[in-house]
Amino acid sequence: MKNIVVLGAGRSSSALIEYLLKQSTEYNWKVIVADFSLEAAQSKIKNHTNGKAIKLNIEDYAERNNLILQADAVVSLLPPHLHILAAKECLSCNKSLFTASYVSQDISEMDEEARQKGLLFMNECGLDPGIDHMSAVEIIHRIKNMGGEVLSFKSYTGGLIAPESSDNPWRYKFTWNPRNVILAGQSTAQYLENGKVHYTPYRRLFRNTDLVEIDGHGNFDGYANRDSLNYIEHYDLKNVQTLIRGTLRNAGFCTAWDVFVTIGLTDDSFIINECDKYTYASLVRSFLPATDAGIDIIQSVAKLCRIEQEGEVMNMIKWTGILDEVSIPLKKASPAGILQELLERKWSLKTTDKDMVVMNHEFIYRNEGKTKKINSSMVVIGKNSDDTAMAQTVGSPLGIVVKLHLTGKLTLTGVRIPVEPEIYNAVLPELKNLGISFNETEEEIDQLN
Amino acid sequence: MKNIVVLGAGRSSSALIEYLLKQSTEYNWKVIVADFSLEAAQSKIKNHTNGKAIKLNIEDYAERNNLILQADAVVSLLPPHLHILAAKECLSCNKSLFTASYVSQDISEMDEEARQKGLLFMNECGLDPGIDHMSAVEIIHRIKNMGGEVLSFKSYTGGLIAPESSDNPWRYKFTWNPRNVILAGQSTAQYLENGKVHYTPYRRLFRNTDLVEIDGHGNFDGYANRDSLNYIEHYDLKNVQTLIRGTLRNAGFCTAWDVFVTIGLTDDSFIINECDKYTYASLVRSFLPATDAGIDIIQSVAKLCRIEQEGEVMNMIKWTGILDEVSIPLKKASPAGILQELLERKWSLKTTDKDMVVMNHEFIYRNEGKTKKINSSMVVIGKNSDDTAMAQTVGSPLGIVVKLHLTGKLTLTGVRIPVEPEIYNAVLPELKNLGISFNETEEEIDQLN
Repeated sequence: MKNIVVLGAGRSSSALIEYLLKQSTEYNWKVIVADFSLEAAQSKIKNHTNGKAIKLNIEDYAERNNLILQADAVVSLLPPHLHILAAKECLSCNKSLFTASYVSQDISEMDEEARQKGLLFMNECGLDPGIDHMSAVEIIHRIKNMGGEVLSFKSYTGGLIAPESSDNPWRYKFTWNPRNVILAGQSTAQYLENGKVHYTPYRRLFRNTDLVEIDGHGNFDGYANRDSLNYIEHYDLKNVQTLIRGTLRNAGFCTAWDVFVTIGLTDDSFIINECDKYTYASLVRSFLPATDAGIDIIQSVAKLCRIEQEGEVMNMIKWTGILDEVSIPLKKASPAGILQELLERKWSLKTTDKDMVVMNHEFIYRNEGKTKKINSSMVVIGKNSDDTAMAQTVGSPLGIVVKLHLTGKLTLTGVRIPVEPEIYNAVLPELKNLGISFNETEEEIDQLN
Repeated sequence: MKNIVVLGAGRSSSALIEYLLKQSTEYNWKVIVADFSLEAAQSKIKNHTNGKAIKLNIEDYAERNNLILQADAVVSLLPPHLHILAAKECLSCNKSLFTASYVSQDISEMDEEARQKGLLFMNECGLDPGIDHMSAVEIIHRIKNMGGEVLSFKSYTGGLIAPESSDNPWRYKFTWNPRNVILAGQSTAQYLENGKVHYTPYRRLFRNTDLVEIDGHGNFDGYANRDSLNYIEHYDLKNVQTLIRGTLRNAGFCTAWDVFVTIGLTDDSFIINECDKYTYASLVRSFLPATDAGIDIIQSVAKLCRIEQEGEVMNMIKWTGILDEVSIPLKKASPAGILQELLERKWSLKTTDKDMVVMNHEFIYRNEGKTKKINSSMVVIGKNSDDTAMAQTVGSPLGIVVKLHLTGKLTLTGVRIPVEPEIYNAVLPELKNLGISFNETEEEIDQLN
């Protein structure tokens, strides 16, 4: 019997643990789920014969060491800053490690020692980062193998709400860490367009969106993530002219979100004391020009943000309650914290709500004198507010890679991200069996447009 | 003979050290100037009989302890993050300490121990903070003492260039830390206006300026500093309706500076590798909308920033060279670092240039049924690029307070800022003798406007 140790039983762990338990009888696995909260761990195991829930304080050396020593594979779903504790322990106990998080500098420095010991530290193995890497690189390698050259690559991913559960004007609800959604984009976005590096500051990010059309699913807005330039190297796209990775929202979301940004409501850099003395409307007024004190708040917001007083964008803003004379139910918070608390109530999933994960890659490449465009898109709909598309798409690739490792199918060692054929050739077909698949179209086009 | 230890012999130390040496014979002082660079310390002492220059690594305990033990008063002009080393040593060696920097949390926590030991830790004793505190509180106390109540207080300070040395369209040169000028205002400004708290995000700060007229010196633009709300308590202005502290620039500066902010050139959050492959123009283009690639850079900047293509603001931008096809002479830098290096060459003082420090307070108060306005302004012109108004106004109040301390004129103990009558009643008249004085006017007005 092999032991899989899963560190962390939070929101993102359900689908992974379910996947591992489902296969545990066939492969003779024991799945040990460790969390600071024993209840959280137990709720994921659901009394499965091959499951075991334990309480763990990852910061306690003896507890950590004792647990990891028993493992044949370790999966860390801890908050990113705690991965390093798991990684160091895995290195000293000679265990392979699997995460869905970005490789930190600390962990990347373990590459040589991991290789020497024959260990695999596989990171960025969830949805984004994760499925995006595998699905993009599979196509990039295919283009290269037939002698083609990628000229342009644009890739967007979004955690959204399924149309049938969309009952608010934003067509959005939180399916992931709300704080990350509120603070998204606060660093200058860096990307490549038509051979030139472009920088888009936060204050222009949500006005500078890309229209993304997905067959049968309508139009979306994409805004650029912070770090697209790194992927020239990660994806080995030396001569690429355009490279943008970003986040998808339903059409209209970004224009309305930009109102919050322009007012200043996404600012997390200072704390307002005695917030409960404010109403949402008076908080917004405190950000509006003092010279507008005599005019209606809607008129003032419309003027500042250059939107119509009676239009759809203003309706979206009004719908959130941020312009209401309702007391803020917090004592101390940043503007971003106040906005988050409000939106968490407005954008929460109902039990029966279905979420939707959308990923879209667009490649333009030249081969044998022809310019072609490939569109590859994935749409996954969740089952309900527990069994979300987000949890499935984050947990499944991680579960599959752990299985490949434990069944001896992987030869890779060192600190890795899933961009090798050995990984994506095994993972993508199995994801397809789980209903996580891409729809690919290809057409010849006149020129790079 | 009493020993004054001055820690740090940087730009801000000249006038202070000169002041102390000038008085050293009369008061029988020895002025020990300690710096990491012995040459820097020597250049300030200029072989004065009562001066001594020494090399000091403040981070070395033995050196620090040995020096401070000899002192009768310690002045720290170290970079702010190093004050704490001096302060801890002063506390353990029972020495009083004087700085021109804001009180940090660490230092404010030393208040009780300093009081118990009968030590004075006097901070914020330069220009701004420093002279602004003393000159404002003197008037506030005067109004209160006659039974009046302050309704509005606006205070602006600027380190500028004298009109006779103003030879560029910005009417500005660096007379202080250039990095602080480039990054100024990047936190949300908080202030009180007509009884309401207002927050102005960075992206609107330089468009949201106050017109400040100073008799005989023309018009200036004032933009709000980060932290005006704290001064309700510091200045004991419980019922004040308007309280703004800010920075002065010559009229027009802020509108033009906002162009840099809007483009994104003051961003210090990421590093551009291989900057030397860019020209200034191509750097600016990388921040402009990609859709503008085909149009002239001036047209694109004008459109983005909503300024005229042929107007004065565009002339100011062009004058800096930021739109020129000239290679950037740096390897790696943030956009803010690139802008700083360029402007340091454009905005450097010539040897004969005279700088100008301007401070303006406006008070509106009610007393005996009448509403009155007091304007109090200070304008100090420097002698040349070494003996600047900035160095004089930062160093003189500090020197005077050290003298008051060593001659037994101060009874205050603990961690303080100069808002007590004991301080300002002694310092302001002596500043006046040094040519640093305020011009005050008062008029009755109809209402708070």
